[in-house]
Amino acid sequence: MTRQELINQIMTKKTFLCVGLDTDIKKIPEHLLTAEDPIFEFNKAIIDATAKYCVAYKPNLAFYESMGVKGWVSFERTINYLNGAYPNHFIIADAKRGDIGNTSAMYARTFFEEINLDALTVAPYMGEDSVTPFLQYPGKWVILLALTSNKGSHDFQLTEDKDGERLFEKVLRTSQQWGNADNMMYVVGATQGRMFEDIRKVAPDHFLLVPGIGAQGGSLEEVCKYGMTKDCGLLVNSSRAIIYADKTEDFAKVAGQEAKKVADQMAAILG
Amino acid sequence: MTRQELINQIMTKKTFLCVGLDTDIKKIPEHLLTAEDPIFEFNKAIIDATAKYCVAYKPNLAFYESMGVKGWVSFERTINYLNGAYPNHFIIADAKRGDIGNTSAMYARTFFEEINLDALTVAPYMGEDSVTPFLQYPGKWVILLALTSNKGSHDFQLTEDKDGERLFEKVLRTSQQWGNADNMMYVVGATQGRMFEDIRKVAPDHFLLVPGIGAQGGSLEEVCKYGMTKDCGLLVNSSRAIIYADKTEDFAKVAGQEAKKVADQMAAILG
Repeated sequence: MTRQELINQIMTKKTFLCVGLDTDIKKIPEHLLTAEDPIFEFNKAIIDATAKYCVAYKPNLAFYESMGVKGWVSFERTINYLNGAYPNHFIIADAKRGDIGNTSAMYARTFFEEINLDALTVAPYMGEDSVTPFLQYPGKWVILLALTSNKGSHDFQLTEDKDGERLFEKVLRTSQQWGNADNMMYVVGATQGRMFEDIRKVAPDHFLLVPGIGAQGGSLEEVCKYGMTKDCGLLVNSSRAIIYADKTEDFAKVAGQEAKKVADQMAAILG
Repeated sequence: MTRQELINQIMTKKTFLCVGLDTDIKKIPEHLLTAEDPIFEFNKAIIDATAKYCVAYKPNLAFYESMGVKGWVSFERTINYLNGAYPNHFIIADAKRGDIGNTSAMYARTFFEEINLDALTVAPYMGEDSVTPFLQYPGKWVILLALTSNKGSHDFQLTEDKDGERLFEKVLRTSQQWGNADNMMYVVGATQGRMFEDIRKVAPDHFLLVPGIGAQGGSLEEVCKYGMTKDCGLLVNSSRAIIYADKTEDFAKVAGQEAKKVADQMAAILG
């Protein structure tokens, strides 16, 4: 999906919600456990109930890999379902990959050729040749970790170099030599509040993927106040607060209602 | 496997070689392609031919994931084979994972409970809570990226902070508050040469996993000169130079010969 297509979706649907499909077999409603593929059945129901309130889905691969081969089957089935039934939704694999060039190229082949995803999250620690193999696919995106939502983000990401530049700022600045606002986004946690101002000084136009509202406690208003651009420039993710809002047979309906609540807030902000 | 058990293996067998199982369907001998699971057949033959010359195996997950569900089947079959036939070998999944605590805990469950691995490579960018969930399993190891073998390692890992400490040194120093030499190792590329001296100033006792000899051009002598400790303290990995040394029906035999060459050098160094 191109940047303009993504912006069109956001402006048409008045939402920039990304629903995180962090599907954990231990947390889904019990009545699904007898299905042949409970994870997929859960995802399909959540997707059908939330699709009109969001523009993106983000399965986190850890949750699928934790189930081994079966988990990969559920993951690929989910992506195929999304590509077939909801081709206008932006699909992100939250994988946080990044390896030497040779190996990153293998990952790129997996996620962009074998499985038809729009974007992949990538960790920046190994530098340029770990990232650029993902940038060779037209219409596909790298979403580079910049300033994450967790407590550990303070350990290294805020380290200032001799010139006062913090590591996340160096990641933002340096990576703009590798890609641009048409094929690269950044992960910035909703919990970072006013730091979005600093992010926008270095990356004024890039889309930001923002996890951390809902269960992690970040504020949508604050993210928008300091991070929104004229093109919106935000994909705000919520996972647990939507997909696990209810544990009964009504789980999908309630997830849809929760997604709608967030989407209504977003519509108000977009004006 | 405990640190002492690993040291015993190294001292008994006089080798600290790790064979990297970066198995690419496009590079294995053609006659294997008719097998039901070519990747596993290749791995099994390589393992049987090299086991006595090495103490560790390191499948890189990217190569398995690139084949989707089929790749995961081959990966799990390989690990099961290693655990059954060669229980004294140290098994590393080169995965470079690292996510928020909740998600890292899922990965830990996958790799240390579901699949019985000894160690996992982890990326440090997200800090403490992305690493510590992996340290909750007795006898299991985190191998944290410190100074990698690739060109891109210069982009961020060498960045000096205000006190002149480089990022990889900060990673080494800070992470020693989370784990210790009994449950944590570091990745340091063989291509980094004399930088091993700097690594040993900050991490004098930890084992280092050293990729980058062979195809990537690092020198075993230099690594040992600057990086070896009284307990050896090194697992030196070679992947492509061993497993793809020959493309005929003799591939496993030739791989064994190549592994033996490296092991002979190692035995001479260990004295």
